[in-house]
Amino acid sequence: MGPGLLGASLGMAIRKREISKSIRVWARKQSSLQKCKEEVWCDEISSSLEEAVNACDLVVVCTPIMHIEETLQKIIPKCPEETIITDVGSVKGSICKVANESSSGKGTCFIGSHPMAGSEKSGMENANAELFENRTCIITPYPKDSIVEIEKLESFWRLLGMQVHRETPKNHDTIVSSISHLPHLIASSLADHLASCPSSWLEMAGQGFKDTTRIAQGDPALWCEIMKSNRENLCDSLDQWQKSVNEVRSLLHAEKWDNLTQYLSDAAELRKKIKS
Amino acid sequence: MGPGLLGASLGMAIRKREISKSIRVWARKQSSLQKCKEEVWCDEISSSLEEAVNACDLVVVCTPIMHIEETLQKIIPKCPEETIITDVGSVKGSICKVANESSSGKGTCFIGSHPMAGSEKSGMENANAELFENRTCIITPYPKDSIVEIEKLESFWRLLGMQVHRETPKNHDTIVSSISHLPHLIASSLADHLASCPSSWLEMAGQGFKDTTRIAQGDPALWCEIMKSNRENLCDSLDQWQKSVNEVRSLLHAEKWDNLTQYLSDAAELRKKIKS
Repeated sequence: MGPGLLGASLGMAIRKREISKSIRVWARKQSSLQKCKEEVWCDEISSSLEEAVNACDLVVVCTPIMHIEETLQKIIPKCPEETIITDVGSVKGSICKVANESSSGKGTCFIGSHPMAGSEKSGMENANAELFENRTCIITPYPKDSIVEIEKLESFWRLLGMQVHRETPKNHDTIVSSISHLPHLIASSLADHLASCPSSWLEMAGQGFKDTTRIAQGDPALWCEIMKSNRENLCDSLDQWQKSVNEVRSLLHAEKWDNLTQYLSDAAELRKKIKS
Repeated sequence: MGPGLLGASLGMAIRKREISKSIRVWARKQSSLQKCKEEVWCDEISSSLEEAVNACDLVVVCTPIMHIEETLQKIIPKCPEETIITDVGSVKGSICKVANESSSGKGTCFIGSHPMAGSEKSGMENANAELFENRTCIITPYPKDSIVEIEKLESFWRLLGMQVHRETPKNHDTIVSSISHLPHLIASSLADHLASCPSSWLEMAGQGFKDTTRIAQGDPALWCEIMKSNRENLCDSLDQWQKSVNEVRSLLHAEKWDNLTQYLSDAAELRKKIKS
């Protein structure tokens, strides 16, 4: 549901890897549905939420983050008990809570997912079947969730080539505030800093600057929603990281070169633990 | 001179593009010289600085930044007038000043170069003939330098596939403090921040985190030297950039979502002005 970058890429990847017999798309806009109808990976389209989730084994909500909760509230009561429902939102605490409340008294199984496979490009026109390959997916079950459903969802993401991790919704939000939302904010602050410099400087920017700021190109409205949803954690991460900045700044001011080398060396060692 | 990552890549690129009839290498270590001797791109080796620069059209000093000035002081008096001398140091003010003093009273032409083609990997074993392609090179002549020599040096870097810019040594150092040295320090601060988090978080880090911190893997001793050489400019850049961080932090705290979207949008627009 929601054939944007992630939704359409999901359709392509599922078709390419022959994971599902049939793929049905729901979209808010009629024009998006018509576009999907012409795609080889799309078997059926539906403009009705109720109709869209009928007789599905798996429902993946890929709408923009601000619409995920209301979409879940509408579809969860309509889904048969055997359907697994998930989403692709970048912040999980509130979404999982809302889904859990909508499920209560019903056997419907919602488990949150966060496939970390975004790009600075958005929209169906940038979708591709390889978007999920070798990327991380964090799924966020509650302790009460059935292990069978959890493993089914995990194997779905694995079939798409993803490395799957399990975290509680709360831990997930703390973790991504440091490894995803903070880096975006830092990249934006560096790009913003350059905005006050002569534009000719940009022409000279090398690969290091390009890499460090690449994610700042992400959709501003989407990222504002993500930051809004994870505001408290992000404020904490910002404060923690500011301590690292203050430390290196004081080493530079005090000309403590051995300590600065050690600081850079520790940072380099940490970064080398991550592949590529 | 100095067959590390840049020096050896330069040899390979010059040979591949047939820019020079003969390539002579000088290195401090005998073991490096022996390694070069086995390389197809290396025609001659020399362990004597004086011998190494004899009858050269172009001398490129590629030693680590802390040795560039002393090397220039030794070779400039030995070079024939028609030789063009340059270097590949990342900070130019002091190097160009020293070279200029060593040249005074002699016709020898030194013009600083900064090919922005480094990598988080260093050493001859990571060298490759394509290192310079489509990268930026800033050359830093003084107003007194001859246009013929400047254009010869520019055409040398262009033949290697580089986009060449001209700046004074002073302007160069101000510019790279913002577009190169500050990004390195920011990437290191983000990696350093993660060092205080559980190590399992690193396994979940996505492409955004990887890109934003990639340059933090650079050689710590080399980068400390670079930051030391450009300390004052880097302190200024840090302070300017901190204003951008403070701004976004206060928007987040005050929940000014429209302003945050605008901030992210301005940053995205700026970043999109740079290719890839």
